[in-house]
Amino acid sequence: MGRIGRRGRTVEHTEALRSPHPARPAAPARAAYWFISAAIAVCASVHAQTADPLPSWNDGSVKQNIVAFVQGTTNMGDRRFVPPAERIAVFDNDGTLWTEQPMYTQLVFALDRVKALAPSHPEWRTQMPFSAVLRDDTKAFDAAGDKALEQVMFATHTGMTPEEFTKTVNDWIAGARHPRFNRRYTELVYQPMIELLAYLRASGFKTYIVTGGTVEFVRAWSERVYGIPPEQVVGTTFVTKYSIPNAHPTLTREPEVDFVDDGPGKPEAIQKFIGRHPTFAVGNSDGDQEMLEWTAGRSGARFVALVHHTDAQREWAYDRSSHIGRLDKALDEAARGNWTVIDMKRDWARVFAFEPAN
Amino acid sequence: MGRIGRRGRTVEHTEALRSPHPARPAAPARAAYWFISAAIAVCASVHAQTADPLPSWNDGSVKQNIVAFVQGTTNMGDRRFVPPAERIAVFDNDGTLWTEQPMYTQLVFALDRVKALAPSHPEWRTQMPFSAVLRDDTKAFDAAGDKALEQVMFATHTGMTPEEFTKTVNDWIAGARHPRFNRRYTELVYQPMIELLAYLRASGFKTYIVTGGTVEFVRAWSERVYGIPPEQVVGTTFVTKYSIPNAHPTLTREPEVDFVDDGPGKPEAIQKFIGRHPTFAVGNSDGDQEMLEWTAGRSGARFVALVHHTDAQREWAYDRSSHIGRLDKALDEAARGNWTVIDMKRDWARVFAFEPAN
Repeated sequence: MGRIGRRGRTVEHTEALRSPHPARPAAPARAAYWFISAAIAVCASVHAQTADPLPSWNDGSVKQNIVAFVQGTTNMGDRRFVPPAERIAVFDNDGTLWTEQPMYTQLVFALDRVKALAPSHPEWRTQMPFSAVLRDDTKAFDAAGDKALEQVMFATHTGMTPEEFTKTVNDWIAGARHPRFNRRYTELVYQPMIELLAYLRASGFKTYIVTGGTVEFVRAWSERVYGIPPEQVVGTTFVTKYSIPNAHPTLTREPEVDFVDDGPGKPEAIQKFIGRHPTFAVGNSDGDQEMLEWTAGRSGARFVALVHHTDAQREWAYDRSSHIGRLDKALDEAARGNWTVIDMKRDWARVFAFEPAN
Repeated sequence: MGRIGRRGRTVEHTEALRSPHPARPAAPARAAYWFISAAIAVCASVHAQTADPLPSWNDGSVKQNIVAFVQGTTNMGDRRFVPPAERIAVFDNDGTLWTEQPMYTQLVFALDRVKALAPSHPEWRTQMPFSAVLRDDTKAFDAAGDKALEQVMFATHTGMTPEEFTKTVNDWIAGARHPRFNRRYTELVYQPMIELLAYLRASGFKTYIVTGGTVEFVRAWSERVYGIPPEQVVGTTFVTKYSIPNAHPTLTREPEVDFVDDGPGKPEAIQKFIGRHPTFAVGNSDGDQEMLEWTAGRSGARFVALVHHTDAQREWAYDRSSHIGRLDKALDEAARGNWTVIDMKRDWARVFAFEPAN
């Protein structure tokens, strides 16, 4: 009996408490139930007193603020207390949970897919922007602008079912290697953020990704890598159409953008998909500014933070003038709004899990 | 220490199992943890053997099929076993979870709101379709068609923040009474379905509403009434815009339909919002047909059902010729696809909680 079985029963136990009219357990079960509730409380409390939930964070004001916020929001006697149902934590993905340099991973995937699909598209050899991609002519591709990007995205991300797309992503991500670190992209997630996600969940927060990337690209591996299930990933979407070809119900990803989950799109998507005002939000670029402002505008407790890339040695150092993950206006806003700025170099004891621990 | 506190700790316990890199508890906590896991298993098993999870369902093949399906999908040794993460159950709302006769509740709300707002809109007295609503001239309103409906929906559902809209819905639903039963609308939820939702959640299923109604109308009270939190309600959406008037981050509901969650829109929305193929689906009308087909097309275990309104005495009897909740093509499809048809009169021992139990 492995993890799945245990989890199934634990969910059973949790959800029964939420149901409006839970079936009443018989008396012996009821007694056992109260005993178990009490035992869990003791166990959780023992655990909280002994383990450091954020071992990859350096001691300092940022780590202290995070821990104080979580302790305050989960303590019924604290003025910052937030009921569990309202403990919604939202995280940007690129540059916040994993590396976005030297190129957004999803774009690396798209360019690799153009090459993989090229044998069935002989016309691409002379057709922009595909010809530029096949020649590795980044300059020509960049010069072709947003329209070129859209063409490459449509050619590689649409025209198939969601299941087919998910399989393609997972096949790619199992083999592709990052040019600088020679590691799989899923190893280039920030260990301190993995710990923060787990700490928040262990404190009753529901963790969400709200990404400018397209949602199914991240959903393909988010549960495995971040512990965040597909239904808690919000992102940019393509129009998806239902039809029944050959009596087989099918969804097809269409070459049409449905919703861009970036900038003001982030708070709009949070309302549409989650329908609650977040309590905790972390981003790293100007594309996250509105999500962070929106969270900061919540009445009651809220924690708003930016990851500032300051560590060229272990990862990258960039902000106001970067083409990828530009952090300019949001950095000013952080100072004005007194948001937490996570300084990668100062605050993280290690960046990636594969680094030796200090 | 009430329900919230207990739930918080239970979530803590559950989520720790899901985190990709859970912090390891210290040795005494670890021992306690294993003991508790085992105790929960025994407790759940005792409970399952003693309590009828569906007391408002009559014994018969439908109830037997539901119980057999849930037992099969949650038993690791069964060929129908479904891992907890994939246990997604989707329910239509109007006519599936609560009464939709003699008029969709959301439309009753909209018409009442026109009357409430009329003093600030003197022009409505002579302006269709509002003048018809104010005169209770249902015939003229119906004759004015979909455009009139849209005008009334925009006037009553948009132009405010989501929080303001939610408050308006909750104020209304606390007082409004159903014309036939003289009960609050939230009392007109089907008790057998409330039990089914709780039973599924107690068996590790995540329960969702996928409604043709607008999502914030249902989210306002779904957690309280169904035990389904806002983030698990999928529905028709209006465009919502982010802006910062007077330095205060604000979302505003715009008079523009974003997405219609009906017919083929239901499987499309399930992919967009949930990103998983449901295992369990219940609807009651032709607007649910595609959602049920889509679920039926899943490889592996799935349960697909229609609520058939056959009980004019306790609720209503209607199907192929009804203007509200028409069930025609989907009933043919149910026969072809061997879906479960829940016959309200035959299968439900009681319809509403306020009826005396048998």
